[in-house]
Amino acid sequence: MLQYTNHFDTKTLDPFTLEKGFEAVHYEEQNKAVGYYHLPKLSQALVKELDTMRDEIDSRFDTIAVIGIGGSSLGIKAIERLLRSGTPNAKKLIYLENSDPLSIISEMEEIDKSKTLFILISKSGGTVEALSIFKRLIVSFELTLDNSDQIYVISDDNSILSRFADEHHLRRFAIPDNVGGRFSVLSAVGIVPLTLAGFDTASILKGAQDFLDRFWNRKEEHILQKASYYVSHKDQYPMNVLFAYSDAFAEFGKWVVQLWGESLGKKNRYGERVGLTPISLIGSVDQHSFLQLIIEGPLNKTVTFMHVESSAEHLMIPKLSLKYLEKSDFINGKSFNELINAQCQATMQSVLQSGVSVDEIAWKKIDEISVGEMIAYYELLTSISGALMEINTYDQPGVELGKTILTSYFQK
Amino acid sequence: MLQYTNHFDTKTLDPFTLEKGFEAVHYEEQNKAVGYYHLPKLSQALVKELDTMRDEIDSRFDTIAVIGIGGSSLGIKAIERLLRSGTPNAKKLIYLENSDPLSIISEMEEIDKSKTLFILISKSGGTVEALSIFKRLIVSFELTLDNSDQIYVISDDNSILSRFADEHHLRRFAIPDNVGGRFSVLSAVGIVPLTLAGFDTASILKGAQDFLDRFWNRKEEHILQKASYYVSHKDQYPMNVLFAYSDAFAEFGKWVVQLWGESLGKKNRYGERVGLTPISLIGSVDQHSFLQLIIEGPLNKTVTFMHVESSAEHLMIPKLSLKYLEKSDFINGKSFNELINAQCQATMQSVLQSGVSVDEIAWKKIDEISVGEMIAYYELLTSISGALMEINTYDQPGVELGKTILTSYFQK
Repeated sequence: MLQYTNHFDTKTLDPFTLEKGFEAVHYEEQNKAVGYYHLPKLSQALVKELDTMRDEIDSRFDTIAVIGIGGSSLGIKAIERLLRSGTPNAKKLIYLENSDPLSIISEMEEIDKSKTLFILISKSGGTVEALSIFKRLIVSFELTLDNSDQIYVISDDNSILSRFADEHHLRRFAIPDNVGGRFSVLSAVGIVPLTLAGFDTASILKGAQDFLDRFWNRKEEHILQKASYYVSHKDQYPMNVLFAYSDAFAEFGKWVVQLWGESLGKKNRYGERVGLTPISLIGSVDQHSFLQLIIEGPLNKTVTFMHVESSAEHLMIPKLSLKYLEKSDFINGKSFNELINAQCQATMQSVLQSGVSVDEIAWKKIDEISVGEMIAYYELLTSISGALMEINTYDQPGVELGKTILTSYFQK
Repeated sequence: MLQYTNHFDTKTLDPFTLEKGFEAVHYEEQNKAVGYYHLPKLSQALVKELDTMRDEIDSRFDTIAVIGIGGSSLGIKAIERLLRSGTPNAKKLIYLENSDPLSIISEMEEIDKSKTLFILISKSGGTVEALSIFKRLIVSFELTLDNSDQIYVISDDNSILSRFADEHHLRRFAIPDNVGGRFSVLSAVGIVPLTLAGFDTASILKGAQDFLDRFWNRKEEHILQKASYYVSHKDQYPMNVLFAYSDAFAEFGKWVVQLWGESLGKKNRYGERVGLTPISLIGSVDQHSFLQLIIEGPLNKTVTFMHVESSAEHLMIPKLSLKYLEKSDFINGKSFNELINAQCQATMQSVLQSGVSVDEIAWKKIDEISVGEMIAYYELLTSISGALMEINTYDQPGVELGKTILTSYFQK
């Protein structure tokens, strides 16, 4: 279990708003309009099904190429990055996302066709990047479509991509109708590639389920406080910074940015533009980049400090005194993990002293249970905030115009 | 030469403010209080000096390990990432930055001591991350300090680190006194590792110099307009987004974030907190993440769209029609480069239509001259904006408290 501390003032929060937040997401969960709440339970069956395929997959493939973008890759990458060092035997994962030709070429160079399972992921089935790259792969690697055992498809049951998959008798997994792309990491989207790659997804799901259970049982009230605080201060603090002290959070930060930004940047029911801007930072690196702005710049940001008590690696700073550099000897004989944690605490203290609203999420270690909990935490935080902002948290109408303009360019 | 288009309304800008911006930076340049303006010229001599060492370096080393953080690594990484695909024979660069033990271990695993040149970079000479990692490297690789030909040091002439280097007769390069860390990429900080790695730094410097010359000759007025617009709208638009359409800009975006955030997030001469928050996005990926917030969220951001006309790689989207997926055939037979550029244009149109303030920077291709120009452009933009905000653009007093607290933790 992670430890959550809201250092901002929770006394002024309206108890009615907290109840409203809870009731709103509880209603979503009960009436099944929003599906992600049920994924941790539902997907356990999927893990069992995948486990029966594992021997065959393991003997045939050493690499999984994921073709997908946005909600179809960010969550998978986040989990892989967090758990990779603890899962050294997991298969290699290659992500084909961006329409940048240089990236596609360098990713394709890493693919050995005979040992690679290709998983094409698109909820709508019409994502231009994914389909263009998929076509490129078919031609470059001379992939056979009909009855292929090395191409899997993950999509909405009723999408054009699912019809394509069925036409060619490809193995297909469904994303439930009521689960949006950015909330889909614990559906087949994340569970299929990560389980087949060798990650312990059952424990990730358990971590998410346990947190959800505690939340429904009113044992995680801090999350209601935080959402309520963020929403009630949204004009004062339009930006929410996640400052995570380990490089392993780099991809997780991007997942949070999509979840938070795309869910909450909306026109509300009165047609007003609302939204909260997510910013993902990594410590200690970004102490040398962004920290000055937080401390002395306008007080327009909240900051969440995230840190991990114990690292898998106990790398020490040698007891070595260098002439003229004795000022740095204070850290001799400590571990790098002690250093980075002390940097987080020292920075948090200085940010607090500058008057910034701060909260803190403490991990004991990075393991599957904690990763699952953190996913459920951020999804819930987003849903509660969206409900309090009186928006539709689950759509993204603003991006449609660009797609229409794009198509028109080539149909002239 | 890059092409700059300010799509926002420049008619309402005060001509007096534009002059004030120009005069302020011109004064800085003339009186030499700020040194970076002179680096493109000064560093050409350094390149010539380094060129005489190249044969020896090339025969001895195939890897350069850069030990540095913040201003001592971000610029090097930005240039390497932009120019790597056009400089395939450049040596491998390894960056030891963060105090994250997992990262340090995995970076150390990539180092073959016999073939690696270590370059320790710290302007102040007291950076805790750099010194701790350096000590770890000395012990792990059993590095000899005295007269070592595989350890270089880059620091202020008068720093404790320079005294350390001289004590051990290490090759040492100076960062001019009047050049701050985040403005130092065209000093020895960037020029030494990049030149020795095999990058054409003379052309980068030329690109920067040419742009500065044109600016001083009042041929690049758009930059004054943009700085003036950003500063006069800083309360309305507290965030400035750089949306760059190529993965190659990922590290450049981080360099801009440091430059912009740390320079402009300050207390001004009246003690008021001012600042502009930089946000770096990559297209097309972040169309699936952040775009919704830009389009429908609060109008509190400016957006700069950056794109590259021609790519080094002409990867085509095959003329392949897949059953049920015919909707995506509109892009068949085009190149991925055409796709990503069309995505940029379509997204820019949709963002403009939503009422956001937009400007555009068009690269013909990614080459050394353009990279140098872009560095000079962002440094100038930052300096002009800082002058108009009446702050000290070049210090970072806000980060000192955290350092003091950190030291006190270990001296208890």
